[in-house]
Amino acid sequence: MTRKTNSGLFFEDYSVGQIMKHSVPRTVTSGERAFYHAAYPSRHAFYSSDLFAKDCGMPQSPLTELAAFHIIFGKTVPDISLNAVANLGYAEGLFIKPVFVGDTLRSESKIIGLKQNSSGKTGVVWVRTSGFNQNDEKVMDYVRWVMVKKKDLDAPEPKAEIPDLKKNLRVEELIIPEGLTFENYNFDFSGERYRLKDYSIGEKINHIDAVTIEEAEHMMATRIWQNTAKVHFDKTQRADLTRLVYGGHIISMARALSFNGLANAQLIAGINSGSHVNPCIAGDTVTAWSEVIDTAFTRNPNVGAIRLRLVASKQPLKELELFETNGDYKSNVLLDFDYWAFIPI
Amino acid sequence: MTRKTNSGLFFEDYSVGQIMKHSVPRTVTSGERAFYHAAYPSRHAFYSSDLFAKDCGMPQSPLTELAAFHIIFGKTVPDISLNAVANLGYAEGLFIKPVFVGDTLRSESKIIGLKQNSSGKTGVVWVRTSGFNQNDEKVMDYVRWVMVKKKDLDAPEPKAEIPDLKKNLRVEELIIPEGLTFENYNFDFSGERYRLKDYSIGEKINHIDAVTIEEAEHMMATRIWQNTAKVHFDKTQRADLTRLVYGGHIISMARALSFNGLANAQLIAGINSGSHVNPCIAGDTVTAWSEVIDTAFTRNPNVGAIRLRLVASKQPLKELELFETNGDYKSNVLLDFDYWAFIPI
Amino acid sequence: MTRKTNSGLFFEDYSVGQIMKHSVPRTVTSGERAFYHAAYPSRHAFYSSDLFAKDCGMPQSPLTELAAFHIIFGKTVPDISLNAVANLGYAEGLFIKPVFVGDTLRSESKIIGLKQNSSGKTGVVWVRTSGFNQNDEKVMDYVRWVMVKKKDLDAPEPKAEIPDLKKNLRVEELIIPEGLTFENYNFDFSGERYRLKDYSIGEKINHIDAVTIEEAEHMMATRIWQNTAKVHFDKTQRADLTRLVYGGHIISMARALSFNGLANAQLIAGINSGSHVNPCIAGDTVTAWSEVIDTAFTRNPNVGAIRLRLVASKQPLKELELFETNGDYKSNVLLDFDYWAFIPI
Repeated sequence: MTRKTNSGLFFEDYSVGQIMKHSVPRTVTSGERAFYHAAYPSRHAFYSSDLFAKDCGMPQSPLTELAAFHIIFGKTVPDISLNAVANLGYAEGLFIKPVFVGDTLRSESKIIGLKQNSSGKTGVVWVRTSGFNQNDEKVMDYVRWVMVKKKDLDAPEPKAEIPDLKKNLRVEELIIPEGLTFENYNFDFSGERYRLKDYSIGEKINHIDAVTIEEAEHMMATRIWQNTAKVHFDKTQRADLTRLVYGGHIISMARALSFNGLANAQLIAGINSGSHVNPCIAGDTVTAWSEVIDTAFTRNPNVGAIRLRLVASKQPLKELELFETNGDYKSNVLLDFDYWAFIPI
Repeated sequence: MTRKTNSGLFFEDYSVGQIMKHSVPRTVTSGERAFYHAAYPSRHAFYSSDLFAKDCGMPQSPLTELAAFHIIFGKTVPDISLNAVANLGYAEGLFIKPVFVGDTLRSESKIIGLKQNSSGKTGVVWVRTSGFNQNDEKVMDYVRWVMVKKKDLDAPEPKAEIPDLKKNLRVEELIIPEGLTFENYNFDFSGERYRLKDYSIGEKINHIDAVTIEEAEHMMATRIWQNTAKVHFDKTQRADLTRLVYGGHIISMARALSFNGLANAQLIAGINSGSHVNPCIAGDTVTAWSEVIDTAFTRNPNVGAIRLRLVASKQPLKELELFETNGDYKSNVLLDFDYWAFIPI
Repeated sequence: MTRKTNSGLFFEDYSVGQIMKHSVPRTVTSGERAFYHAAYPSRHAFYSSDLFAKDCGMPQSPLTELAAFHIIFGKTVPDISLNAVANLGYAEGLFIKPVFVGDTLRSESKIIGLKQNSSGKTGVVWVRTSGFNQNDEKVMDYVRWVMVKKKDLDAPEPKAEIPDLKKNLRVEELIIPEGLTFENYNFDFSGERYRLKDYSIGEKINHIDAVTIEEAEHMMATRIWQNTAKVHFDKTQRADLTRLVYGGHIISMARALSFNGLANAQLIAGINSGSHVNPCIAGDTVTAWSEVIDTAFTRNPNVGAIRLRLVASKQPLKELELFETNGDYKSNVLLDFDYWAFIPI
């Protein structure tokens, strides 16, 4: 038996400044666009109707930002998270250019931080990943950090370098896609009448709808983005024979459910932070609620920005609260996700 | 917590004559076309092969009529059936224009009848729904009636208005797609040799094949049409933790299974009536049989019309009978669906 | 009840030399291309990225050969294997022309051998099947043999004719797609650095990754190719209420898993032999390993050929061995598949 197979990297294999060009570029087709609608109850009109997108100044509906994120993320798994113990968080996620059917995406990552844990058995790796299209234009950028096992426990502890990450993107940093306008925005077609001004900071919205998770659905929805992390697909990986649902599946599910109450928060502009608070497995029923963190104008006179905390939770959802009184996350919280969206003013 | 979310309408919210423009138009892609073949054992050659459709005078294979129906139907759910107790029936379903990849569909509905039930807790709402393409051409029309809960039991009982619906469409009312011809119909490719003249009124056909229903399949196949009815997706909605399969999933399943014996009943022309006799849940095995109700010529000399009763039943299927001797539907019947199809003469 | 339905053919219905034009041609869309990536952890860059395929001299990514095989195979099921007891083997599978999105495929078969079994209740049927595109160009060719039931046990035993099949294709027989070149092959994008010269005969590669099989996944992945064999879809077909996974699903799964270690074995050129050693059912976890049987140059100076034995096995996989000491296949082996692939020199 030879060792041509990739068993993934370990904590001691990373160094700050290291650059990785991830393999297997992917051409996006209308098949991926349609499949996203089979996997998630996605209803934002901008991504559902080419005509709606045209009325908003686009040549056609782009691929939903989260699908682009999943493709770019999926490519990093063989190099970053095959031996990850946990996906700890996201920051500085910026959507730079819309992705359209026909585009071919690839990913690159740079290691921007390392810190060995006190146990000496694991460490945290901070990675900035960028996605590029066929014209080498950057389409998105994000940072994530993961806890990775050491293989050689005797490998020297690297100098700890913790990157200085923004708590959140400022509205001025968000990039409005070229041509985007909400001047002719059709509120009949979008599904709700609420504009930026209708949302107030601190407002919480229960999105009501819920979806019970199935193995076949989360596996197909993860596999189509070529994410190869074993725990999602191979039940023999864990002693209890459960497969862990890809965290991005929960992000997409919660975002799709948030249509009900946030139908006009059409485009995701940036990811301020995100963490997968508890694991999700098949049989769990996922619901979602949002809290308005901020609202802002942009340099485009009809495009507003709304900053939202999107929370995915397991049913039953008793109250729209993240934390126990002791400050711990409630046990039914799955996802705590802070993002900016563009919304008509 | 704010109430920006749509909790659906209740019986007292409807009035006869009311018009609703349903939200979230949808552009159909080749992804939806392919997914239909993943969800259903669909084999009618007209929808499988662009060349076959071209030989029948079309520019390419249209989207199968039932997929168009599911899209148009799905858009009505948030406005019509979120609080429906039961989907009681269909009538006057007419396919007016083929839908092609690239078309963008939207739906409008008109309330055409109301009748409060004697309990005072629910009422029946009759709705005529039309689907339109991007050129505002009507692509289909149908009536359905649903039982909807009252929220305010003290709301006054509306004047009962029960629409006068046709028992069935007459063959003269069916619309043959522009250009359709069966002159060069290829019976080798279609899969069977039977023409209109080979079917006789009263003939029953057991389609033999069967499919065991899976949660992931019926959910994806319902979700891709943006149908948001909770009972299909959220197991916590019902005390027994079962999800109800969308009735349209059973219609598509039965129609696909009916290929075996009705391979040349290529296009669905109209829906005379339909009712979901019993609920279906994952684990049920669905099979189908048909009865020939009528056969007719059309004004197109090579296009015939066949009127079929399509019955979906749970296995085991012992006999091709709908009713018990007391006139009740047999307990394993899921669907009683009466439609017209176009078939070579 | 009438008998318009196809109950399939029985052993006594076949004769050597008989030709069958299978029904229901199929146009391939980008939906099928995308769905393949949802069903299998397929990562070969040639099929993932149009740009990568262009760098290899193609106009765009073709449909992966196995998807073309499944389409062509699926069409034969109603005529060949509805009453098959077992799918015994494959040989002389040759990929002749790439299949692209937009192509319309059809299948033809010729009966090339017959042998009644000594029980008198079944017989073996050898079939050569060819797939054609819309220009009547042959895209692939393969032989399979199946054990089929007799219906009329008194039907006379046909003269036994066993075709003389090649043990394997010679490298000279493989057909390099017109224009294919690995001159500008991008090893960063392909995912691994190994070329033809890096593999040695007898080398075994454990592909490590594994996938737990779900009913919804194998059914959708079989149905999309219009394969109608009852045992895959209808749990009431077998006393133990299990559905058998389509053998082709295991071939595609194992091939996709083999990316890890054989990422540059980009195109499948020919199928030398294949047998489904044990049945697979939902809940099984499938993994794969390969053995290098041969390596060869072709007439194209930068395209090499590698002959591989691809083995799918149920977890746990303890050793990369096919056989027990008594010569029987190990009980966890699912597939023994011998094929040629094109790989950069």
